Amino acid sequence: MAVYTDVSDAELSAFLDRYDMGALLSCKGIAEGVENSNYFVHTEGGNFILTLYEKRVSADDLPFFIGLMDHLASRGLNCPRPVRDRAGEALGTLNGRPAALVTFLDGVWIKQPSAEHCGALGRAMAELHRAGADFPLRRPNGLSVDSWPALFAAAGPGADGVAPGLSALVREELAVLADRWPRGLPEGVVHADLFPDNVFFLGDRLSGLIDFYFACTDALSYDLAVCLNAWCFAPDGAFDPARGRALLDGYRAVRPLSAAEVEALPVLARGAALRFMLTRLVDWLNVPPGALVRPKDPKEYLAKLRFHRTVSSAEAYGFA
Amino acid sequence: MAVYTDVSDAELSAFLDRYDMGALLSCKGIAEGVENSNYFVHTEGGNFILTLYEKRVSADDLPFFIGLMDHLASRGLNCPRPVRDRAGEALGTLNGRPAALVTFLDGVWIKQPSAEHCGALGRAMAELHRAGADFPLRRPNGLSVDSWPALFAAAGPGADGVAPGLSALVREELAVLADRWPRGLPEGVVHADLFPDNVFFLGDRLSGLIDFYFACTDALSYDLAVCLNAWCFAPDGAFDPARGRALLDGYRAVRPLSAAEVEALPVLARGAALRFMLTRLVDWLNVPPGALVRPKDPKEYLAKLRFHRTVSSAEAYGFA
Repeated sequence: MAVYTDVSDAELSAFLDRYDMGALLSCKGIAEGVENSNYFVHTEGGNFILTLYEKRVSADDLPFFIGLMDHLASRGLNCPRPVRDRAGEALGTLNGRPAALVTFLDGVWIKQPSAEHCGALGRAMAELHRAGADFPLRRPNGLSVDSWPALFAAAGPGADGVAPGLSALVREELAVLADRWPRGLPEGVVHADLFPDNVFFLGDRLSGLIDFYFACTDALSYDLAVCLNAWCFAPDGAFDPARGRALLDGYRAVRPLSAAEVEALPVLARGAALRFMLTRLVDWLNVPPGALVRPKDPKEYLAKLRFHRTVSSAEAYGFA
Repeated sequence: MAVYTDVSDAELSAFLDRYDMGALLSCKGIAEGVENSNYFVHTEGGNFILTLYEKRVSADDLPFFIGLMDHLASRGLNCPRPVRDRAGEALGTLNGRPAALVTFLDGVWIKQPSAEHCGALGRAMAELHRAGADFPLRRPNGLSVDSWPALFAAAGPGADGVAPGLSALVREELAVLADRWPRGLPEGVVHADLFPDNVFFLGDRLSGLIDFYFACTDALSYDLAVCLNAWCFAPDGAFDPARGRALLDGYRAVRPLSAAEVEALPVLARGAALRFMLTRLVDWLNVPPGALVRPKDPKEYLAKLRFHRTVSSAEAYGFA
């Protein structure tokens, strides 16, 4: 949940006046998303999402994100499409921050995903990878293996207070993953944050993907690793191979996986678990005073990391 | 800002299935309102607001609030209209809490109201008072003069830490207001919380009133007193007589004020300032751990209270 920026009437009107979207009918802060401030905007021209990019999103990356959504939407992917103002610009300024309007996507996110949902996710992810294949811009993954030592340092000395022995375990993982991290896998545009709240469904039909603000150029199978973690564990913490299988089968129905990609899944999933454990740890140990955001518990991802340490082949994820 | 309750997919679907409103297309938590959890719900049947009533709203009061919105909407007032399910019920249960769907009202609230906005507010308030005249239910104002000593006690001992001398000033006000509080003024349904965020505009036209969860039966002119405080002070803390005059003139254009009502305005405004100062003081000194709500500063209303202590007649508010 995040609405960081109070938008003044005059500034909002001046911002919207640049667009051909009719009179403003409603504007309400949305209690979702943690990186940026999002508003539901209803005008005579339809429904939109207004996003103000807060300081955790680098302004230099915005042309990549905006351009990517434009590219994917033009390839037929259901994702928010940036709205251009009369001058053709999709990126503006509101209350001193970069801001953009995108089309509103119908759908609700699934809090308890089933194997069927995971199958639909796999297909949509592979379609995203295909649609992104000819996107010309590149953006390195700033939260991949090379960044993790600095991320752990940023968490500060409190790790063992979160879970006994956490520091030693992380140091071991940093060494193992630096050593074993796969290189040379097929690369392209990855979403890198396809958690359930970024995937919309209408009934059982996947209706769209949102929130491309971690998207980057990386191994395509890293997206699968993120989703094995985010979609395929039961509420009791156990990995659910039925959901894993559905995710992988759904993906392969659209884009086949090479033997090297399959073989890399355990170490990719282990790394993805460490990446989200570390960012959650940093947030958990550094809640700013007056924050209106409840940090997510890093221990959820610690448990997932411990699971992947026991995995030696992709069969454990349901791969057959 | 408040979204207190996480609604599960299954419970939301079961709740909405009771209504003839078509398939669910979108449901997003809204970062507005502090008493209840509000969701923007888009279905094939249109746009709605889903409200889950949290513990600060008494379930016994809900028939009054729901019945009042129904009554006012049927009298032509622009306010949310409760939606009835197939069994004719406007009040249901979701996630163990009372819950209701109401129609979505277009409009945006004005953060820097002008005299014109205050005039429109005055007219709408008087129309609300007229439309409520034949509403059959009664609900005493639980936050009026008799409740303020207990409210001050609930704030605890920290008052002087918020502002030096605050305890002594409040004790003096409690005595003065108990003595001078007007009795026998024309009564009826009052909104009692008509702050700018509860009044919507489309351009310069007032498009509707929302949030009737403090509505009660009280002196009609108490609503004016609440709005003199909430709408007619400049950002620098000075009372703006031009806005006060516009509010009172707008009101009188629809419903004339008696001499007793005009004469009572200074003490009503002083009491209304104390009421909001006290509830803010309680919230300020009792922020629950993990709260996602930023409490409002009681000192804003302390300054307004100090102003009203200097006022001896309604002329100070622009009344001519």
